[in-house]
Amino acid sequence: MNPGLRRLLNPRRVVVAGGAAAAEAVVVRSRELGFAGEIWPVHPRRRVLAGLPCFPSVADLPGVPDAAFLSVPARSTVDLVGELARVGAGGVVCHASGFAEAGDATLEAELAAAAGDLALLGPNCLGFVNYLDGVALWPEQHGGHRTGRGVAVLSQSGNVAHNLSMQRRGLPLACLVTIGNAAVTGVPELVDTLAADPRVTAIGLYLEAVDDPAGLAAAARRSLAGGVPVVAVKSGTSEAGARATLSHTSALATSDALCSALFAHAGIARVPGLPALVETLKFLHVHGPLDGPSLVSASCSGGEAALVADAAEERGLRLPGLPRPVRERLRAVLGDRVEVANPLDYHTYIWGDAAAQEECFTALLGAGADNHLLVLDFPREDRCRTGAFDSTVDAFVRAARTTGAPASVVATLPENLPEERARRLLEAGIAPMHGLGECLDAIAAAAWAGQARLARPGPLAVSTATGATVQVDEWESKQDLRRAGVPIPEALLTDPRGAVEAAEALGYPVVLKAVSAELAHKTEAGAVRLDLRDAEAVRLAAKELGEISPRLLVERMVTGVVAELIVGVRADPRFGLALTLGSGGTLVELLADAATVLLPATRADFTAAIHGLRARKLIDGHRGRPPGDLDALLDAVESVAAYALSEADRLVELDVNPLLVLRHGIRAVDAVIVRSTG
Amino acid sequence: MNPGLRRLLNPRRVVVAGGAAAAEAVVVRSRELGFAGEIWPVHPRRRVLAGLPCFPSVADLPGVPDAAFLSVPARSTVDLVGELARVGAGGVVCHASGFAEAGDATLEAELAAAAGDLALLGPNCLGFVNYLDGVALWPEQHGGHRTGRGVAVLSQSGNVAHNLSMQRRGLPLACLVTIGNAAVTGVPELVDTLAADPRVTAIGLYLEAVDDPAGLAAAARRSLAGGVPVVAVKSGTSEAGARATLSHTSALATSDALCSALFAHAGIARVPGLPALVETLKFLHVHGPLDGPSLVSASCSGGEAALVADAAEERGLRLPGLPRPVRERLRAVLGDRVEVANPLDYHTYIWGDAAAQEECFTALLGAGADNHLLVLDFPREDRCRTGAFDSTVDAFVRAARTTGAPASVVATLPENLPEERARRLLEAGIAPMHGLGECLDAIAAAAWAGQARLARPGPLAVSTATGATVQVDEWESKQDLRRAGVPIPEALLTDPRGAVEAAEALGYPVVLKAVSAELAHKTEAGAVRLDLRDAEAVRLAAKELGEISPRLLVERMVTGVVAELIVGVRADPRFGLALTLGSGGTLVELLADAATVLLPATRADFTAAIHGLRARKLIDGHRGRPPGDLDALLDAVESVAAYALSEADRLVELDVNPLLVLRHGIRAVDAVIVRSTG
Repeated sequence: MNPGLRRLLNPRRVVVAGGAAAAEAVVVRSRELGFAGEIWPVHPRRRVLAGLPCFPSVADLPGVPDAAFLSVPARSTVDLVGELARVGAGGVVCHASGFAEAGDATLEAELAAAAGDLALLGPNCLGFVNYLDGVALWPEQHGGHRTGRGVAVLSQSGNVAHNLSMQRRGLPLACLVTIGNAAVTGVPELVDTLAADPRVTAIGLYLEAVDDPAGLAAAARRSLAGGVPVVAVKSGTSEAGARATLSHTSALATSDALCSALFAHAGIARVPGLPALVETLKFLHVHGPLDGPSLVSASCSGGEAALVADAAEERGLRLPGLPRPVRERLRAVLGDRVEVANPLDYHTYIWGDAAAQEECFTALLGAGADNHLLVLDFPREDRCRTGAFDSTVDAFVRAARTTGAPASVVATLPENLPEERARRLLEAGIAPMHGLGECLDAIAAAAWAGQARLARPGPLAVSTATGATVQVDEWESKQDLRRAGVPIPEALLTDPRGAVEAAEALGYPVVLKAVSAELAHKTEAGAVRLDLRDAEAVRLAAKELGEISPRLLVERMVTGVVAELIVGVRADPRFGLALTLGSGGTLVELLADAATVLLPATRADFTAAIHGLRARKLIDGHRGRPPGDLDALLDAVESVAAYALSEADRLVELDVNPLLVLRHGIRAVDAVIVRSTG
Repeated sequence: MNPGLRRLLNPRRVVVAGGAAAAEAVVVRSRELGFAGEIWPVHPRRRVLAGLPCFPSVADLPGVPDAAFLSVPARSTVDLVGELARVGAGGVVCHASGFAEAGDATLEAELAAAAGDLALLGPNCLGFVNYLDGVALWPEQHGGHRTGRGVAVLSQSGNVAHNLSMQRRGLPLACLVTIGNAAVTGVPELVDTLAADPRVTAIGLYLEAVDDPAGLAAAARRSLAGGVPVVAVKSGTSEAGARATLSHTSALATSDALCSALFAHAGIARVPGLPALVETLKFLHVHGPLDGPSLVSASCSGGEAALVADAAEERGLRLPGLPRPVRERLRAVLGDRVEVANPLDYHTYIWGDAAAQEECFTALLGAGADNHLLVLDFPREDRCRTGAFDSTVDAFVRAARTTGAPASVVATLPENLPEERARRLLEAGIAPMHGLGECLDAIAAAAWAGQARLARPGPLAVSTATGATVQVDEWESKQDLRRAGVPIPEALLTDPRGAVEAAEALGYPVVLKAVSAELAHKTEAGAVRLDLRDAEAVRLAAKELGEISPRLLVERMVTGVVAELIVGVRADPRFGLALTLGSGGTLVELLADAATVLLPATRADFTAAIHGLRARKLIDGHRGRPPGDLDALLDAVESVAAYALSEADRLVELDVNPLLVLRHGIRAVDAVIVRSTG
């Protein structure tokens, strides 16, 4: 970790340089937030800025600053950064645009060079607000306030950070950091630094592109292992979104499947939008990652119970049946007219009866689920009385205190849980959740993070394959895979005259293929003959295929296929080795039934990937058919992964298509490997 | 339409009967809302209720009431309803529970009988609030206020209606109606009555079950045709949700695919949750259904632009390129540093410059899209200055006024568009939208409704098939379909001795099948032999199949298959005839690639259903393969639909599996029909 980054985020001496508006705003914001250190405005001509005396240059400063907020033109920013680096400052915020995002990569490289050991946020960013220590190197307004504990938010978009700071949902913000072009200090370093602060409970990311996948994965894993889960919204999933992102930052938007695979590898919970990000961070702030996906829900309406059930199922959350003692206790307090179930519609018979409500909730919170939810929308305070609602929530709070069970309150419409009440719930250790959909997004993310924290994947593989490439023919590709432990069909390489002898040795039926590294699409080229059942058929096929290539592959035909899959590995220059597993056959693309996993990965990761495929039903034994050999499949996938890792210095692409899953065993029936020759 | 329902919803004389709390609340709520008519409390013992003199019984009333709110026990409710019917009242709200929802269907039938011609909401409901005329037969609090125009909301859940009324999003509520068990007055009648009021702009439904699909479809279609679109949230999509719903209302939860098909037929836009319902109603209130799905978006941040692009693509909305004059005008005002695109990130260079902002927005609103969106989150008013944000919105309002283009403002977090500002936007004819995801849900729903309103489907088919069923064998089923206009393979029915002659007459290759109404799964029973290429093969197959059945079907083998589909029709006792179209073959269930359409339906409906299938790619010509005959497919599906409709009195089930789509033409290769014999 760069010690300069800590000095930047929690400075005692701050330099503010530049145009009055932004620089003055930084002074005002910092003072508002209680910043007690020194602020030294630097300006070549002005004498006073925001009531503070100005210094004409960095050389004139009375001491070494920890941090600087620079809002001067791009060229001057580079100069000032150089001067600050020379005097031993900690770090700088570069507010100016006009660098790589505007096409000037050279100037951005100069800036990075000038920074030396400085921590540097930006250029083209809004800086940060540190709500824990009271620092606002931030030229705009923000909606937060001081807190002793809270979540950190890192954003590639200044405006998104600004908007998030305006939330009215009781989310305690510890730190808001925008990174702009991230010319020097990137997300991984910030995650490491923020996660090391015991007052930070969770970290949220708004990302448009991922600059350093391996670094992000390593930092997020460290953070999660240290008890600080990381959550992300990643935009640019659509083609138009990728274009819009491109116009905004200088980083290339990356393919969405690789990003999802990266987040899975990194233990980063991906959520679908900004409201879900806020809710997930809030939930994690209170409850942390969950041990499992089980949920108990109570509402005084069947409508809400139905909505909870639908939303839970959509997200793979479980609503387990209630244990018998809980059912009996609930029946005693709720009476015969209420059906005791989960989700529970406790009706309004006990509405206004605080003791009965507390007994009901105490019973329910004894169910032992991973989280316990009260669904309740407050009425508008400007038009309605809220007494009975407050007493319901109070009963829930008392029940949560008595039982110590993890508990949350959710309003189906976000505005129906006012901020002040959210704050009080938070103080009581109950997550105040806004919006049913986002609440269950948050619970699902927390359960996912709970699973993810059990994994300990190694650092992402780095692909060093570069330069020209060569395609390895089927025979050689399959021999490589066989040596790596991937079963292939019994086979012999021969010439057209030896084909019958080879077939007789292997036993019928056989498959005959022309082997040539030049043949990309063997089937389309007519270079494959299936199901040859006698010597005559082999002789005829060998004669014809001999015209395509003098090298023929004779294989035992594989029968009794349960499922046809593909397994491939692609070396991405930034994400490393990405293994894709999916439904195979001629309709591969139509099915779009695939999962991508970054390497290295564990058997558990591959199991999860297979579990998510529709083809999983085939392997499980679809409609009374025999199941396939899942263990052999996992062995083969692990072998492919190990092979790819061992070849990381030259592997460009590897495809096993099809990989046939049998009742017993699997066979890699066709394969091609592409290597770099550089 | 029941004239009593109009009297109930807008009464001049109201009876209030029952327990003090609920009855008093009705008096208080109605007075608060400015109800100017007479309120007559009825109570056997009390002299005064909520300051009004009580009448001992209905017989003692000084006149005929239009409406009554009854909050008395279930048994007394039936008696009072009978008395009110006899004196010629308009309608009643029955607040009591203890009817069908509690298992007492008999008492509910007695209630319906007692009601006679009365309109009746409930039992087991909260009644209604009419915000247009100022009537609140509503025993709880609510969050609304008087309005001259607005949306109506019908809810099967009282609590969901209560929560929706508390929204702080500027949605003008015209009417809030809960229907409870709907023993007498159901959703269709309410939709008809509300849609007939010119002050009602859109109707929202919260449904847990659909009691009268044909009635709902007809009413919703009338409403949409009359300019009042209908939007629905339907819960109970999950198994647990269906159970939770069951415990709440007495109606059976219906299968989700049939509900979706019903909504499509009815022109009801289905939205994913309550926030989306509020946003869609608000959007429709301002803009009505849209002519198309094109959208132009502006934000001062690339982050927001990327989020818009992603959310639009997910929902099938289009972000068209901007016309050249618009691009040039934008370039002139925004300068070189801004990339002119849609979604537009106009940056902050013109922030605070009202004239430039107005020029920018005026140019953009000239793009001619179906809607034009400004993405803008207000800062918290309690901590920040909002001046520059207000002036941005003001510039947008002026541009919208100048251009007359349909325009909306959306905050990415719902709380970042305060209610008072939402109200002012609404007054300016601009939709104030809360939350980016729900905003785009709303726009997608409005575009869908715009398409849906072009269709004029007939009333839903009623299936009258009852009693015992019989399965028609393949030969007869296919002959029926052939006569209905569905192409089948050339075929001859014969016995084992005539098979070769038949094959020679048809030409090789042929398929041989044993025909028997008892054979449900021919392939599994070994009763099908494919690709017989000569007389010897046919002779052998005929001998073997003859042992299964003396009746053999000899068919020309269909080759050159582009896609394998299934088409089926199922007669549902409530939804009528439901046609399902999907990917066929052995992996039907694995693919889960199907769409259901209720009959009658148009070619456009079937086209849309096919368009939504993944198999569509095959028909379009997948990866350079030849395309299939879409016209012939549509002809065949229309023929199947027409046949099913003509057989509605006895058709139970019909399955064509597979329906093979060829380069030219289609063939129904196997079919089975199940009929009632009742």
